[in-house]
Amino acid sequence: MSPRAPENFEEHLSIEELRETWSLLSEEDRVLGFKMAPYEDAEDFFLSLPAREQAELVASLPPGERRGWMRLLPPDDAADLLQESPPRIREDLLGLLDDATRKEVIALMAYAEDQAGGLMDPRFARVRPDMSVDEAISYLRRQVREYVGTLRYVYVLDEQQRLLGVVPFREVFSAPSATRVRDVMRTDVISVTENMDQEAVSRLFQQHSLNAIPVIDAEGRMKGIVTVDDIVDVVQEEATEDIQKIGGMQALDQPYMSSPILEMIRKRGGWLLVLFLGEMLTATAMAYFEEEIARAVVLTLFIPLIISSGGNSGSQASTLVIRAMALGEVGLRDWLRVMRRELVAGFALGSMLGAIGFLRIILWQAVTPLYGPHYMRIAFTVAASLLGVVMFGTLAGSLLPFALRRLKLDPASASAPFVATLVDVTGLVIYFSVAIALLSGTLL
Amino acid sequence: MSPRAPENFEEHLSIEELRETWSLLSEEDRVLGFKMAPYEDAEDFFLSLPAREQAELVASLPPGERRGWMRLLPPDDAADLLQESPPRIREDLLGLLDDATRKEVIALMAYAEDQAGGLMDPRFARVRPDMSVDEAISYLRRQVREYVGTLRYVYVLDEQQRLLGVVPFREVFSAPSATRVRDVMRTDVISVTENMDQEAVSRLFQQHSLNAIPVIDAEGRMKGIVTVDDIVDVVQEEATEDIQKIGGMQALDQPYMSSPILEMIRKRGGWLLVLFLGEMLTATAMAYFEEEIARAVVLTLFIPLIISSGGNSGSQASTLVIRAMALGEVGLRDWLRVMRRELVAGFALGSMLGAIGFLRIILWQAVTPLYGPHYMRIAFTVAASLLGVVMFGTLAGSLLPFALRRLKLDPASASAPFVATLVDVTGLVIYFSVAIALLSGTLL
Repeated sequence: MSPRAPENFEEHLSIEELRETWSLLSEEDRVLGFKMAPYEDAEDFFLSLPAREQAELVASLPPGERRGWMRLLPPDDAADLLQESPPRIREDLLGLLDDATRKEVIALMAYAEDQAGGLMDPRFARVRPDMSVDEAISYLRRQVREYVGTLRYVYVLDEQQRLLGVVPFREVFSAPSATRVRDVMRTDVISVTENMDQEAVSRLFQQHSLNAIPVIDAEGRMKGIVTVDDIVDVVQEEATEDIQKIGGMQALDQPYMSSPILEMIRKRGGWLLVLFLGEMLTATAMAYFEEEIARAVVLTLFIPLIISSGGNSGSQASTLVIRAMALGEVGLRDWLRVMRRELVAGFALGSMLGAIGFLRIILWQAVTPLYGPHYMRIAFTVAASLLGVVMFGTLAGSLLPFALRRLKLDPASASAPFVATLVDVTGLVIYFSVAIALLSGTLL
Repeated sequence: MSPRAPENFEEHLSIEELRETWSLLSEEDRVLGFKMAPYEDAEDFFLSLPAREQAELVASLPPGERRGWMRLLPPDDAADLLQESPPRIREDLLGLLDDATRKEVIALMAYAEDQAGGLMDPRFARVRPDMSVDEAISYLRRQVREYVGTLRYVYVLDEQQRLLGVVPFREVFSAPSATRVRDVMRTDVISVTENMDQEAVSRLFQQHSLNAIPVIDAEGRMKGIVTVDDIVDVVQEEATEDIQKIGGMQALDQPYMSSPILEMIRKRGGWLLVLFLGEMLTATAMAYFEEEIARAVVLTLFIPLIISSGGNSGSQASTLVIRAMALGEVGLRDWLRVMRRELVAGFALGSMLGAIGFLRIILWQAVTPLYGPHYMRIAFTVAASLLGVVMFGTLAGSLLPFALRRLKLDPASASAPFVATLVDVTGLVIYFSVAIALLSGTLL
């Protein structure tokens, strides 16, 4: 069925060694190591690879050795592999599949990868409503090839393939032999449409603690099932994307180590540039207050402290809200309640930092009189600015994800660095305004 | 079996309405809404709630109405509910279970929640190796109560309950009637120990694309199975914890909206305080350069721009590495390869920002001569500092997670704000050192 290691090749790489070193190997060494592994292990290993790496591996094998590996895959995984393969060999690879699977794969490839249709397995256990339980069981025993995936639910379809109901397999299995399927099936089935987004599908899985969800087309015909094991990957993928956006960059398409370095620089550079241009406004703001700075250089000492405190509290708030939105815990309509919570939190946190900043200046002054005769006023200025900046940061950080969501943009773009930049500029204005108010006639 | 709405109560809340409004309802209203829902829907809804909310709901019901709900739960979920219940009613709730389940639940409660033992379901399909396939199937049909969960795999145990092998259920189902189980079982089973950490368990699921993994005790006896649907929750939970740490706070134990506000303030305040104390070093660093600042106030204009660029590039790098570590894509041994990648990226990104900063000053000066006669030197100073700060930020951000991991701390603690604080202090030192080197004799 597929390539084995030459008989005289004594030294086998164990599959664990192969797995360990895989990411470090060149394409050639991967093929070599893969061919050296005992066949059963290689099969398991192949099935556990992500689609992209399966595609690379198959593309590196001589054309004569590809068929066995292609036929090992269930239709949804074969479709993923094809989508990751270079276009010039796609036709050839499709030709290696048996006729039935090829048709299913072509149908699946029409769906976007991140939609229910792209995730689904077109093979599932189906029975007719008027079968008896005994008939259903022996029918299912004969039809095993039809449900490569899971045997968790049995779906009851009419002649037009419309979904009538569902029975957990264990209920079919344990019901008295003569019972009709119709009498044990449940009719209030949770299903999804082919083009439902994968994030919405994964929320449905979690809300209802399901193991599989049927996919229905516009005419009500059942096309396949999405199973919970596909959802684990979706959840990881979406979390990774969000985390990378929160870290202030465009999400990478590939694992960190295998991302081409130029692409990575481009995806990081884009955001960094936007942030840099935004941050240039700080120089403009400072220039505006240059006269005050020249008169009271001591004020500049606290600039990084004050603006970073605003940035940090803002990044906490935005991260919390972004994640709560992604998990469906917080929706658009909750903005007022979130704002109220964050006002309280911002006031408490700002007061704390303000008090500490105040004490710090008073105490330092007692040791080395660095801040001059007006140190008390300076301490008040710093404390009041900290309170203002932290409250502003907290509010901006928590409300920005709502604004982005409202504009149909991804809330995760309200990343820590983005919020920090916004708060840096505002923080400077707050600080110098407070300074002018409190220090006029003395230092300024 | 359980409380229904009073017969004369006409207005039913639909279960979707209940789900929608749940997080907004008081405890009393929750109980009321729950009781008003049609029983079948209420059952589904109850099963889909997180353990903590199940516990709250059961605790709010009158003691006479609790039994039905407790008995609805499989042992692993009942154990989770009990762990979330107030200690004073735990004994009572345990007493409501049937004897067999109570024993299983007590055994499960001995495990930590985040270990394989705490995740596992003690009920699974088990057969003896010498049964024929037909015997196995009719045995399984009679024993359905024994595997509430999944019927994906059938486990083959000896008389001491030691695991001999496993057969995918569909293979038992499709094999010829007289075949012995022993002859179709696979013996190279991937299993976990009771105290394996849930993150390691979830990686195993993803590496091997499994749907269930058996849990084995120190004597090799099989205790239960962990199924992939439990892993979805684990993956979400771990991602949420990491995201919150990356945002610069201690991870919350509860969803954002239901976290008590004092606890939330405490968890955010702790980190904010640490960052604030760290950031105070910026004031110290600035005081050290106060003389230079007084002589060349123009230098202060670029302080926020320069230090934030370092912080932003550092936060990108640390986020990427933290996530790659969590997904197992990058291990401790990869630090040198990561460092090489980040040196390249940092140099490219730093040169880009440096060039833009340089142009910005030259162009601005052409419009309004803000920066004085030495603007060219100032432009060079800013550009060189940007390159240095971005490279330092990128390196610090990418290597800090390795250092934390090496010290057996959580790499996710190298959050964006943490890296930014570190880079702010260093950034100031870099900036003023470059300034002294390039501007001595002219501005300084």
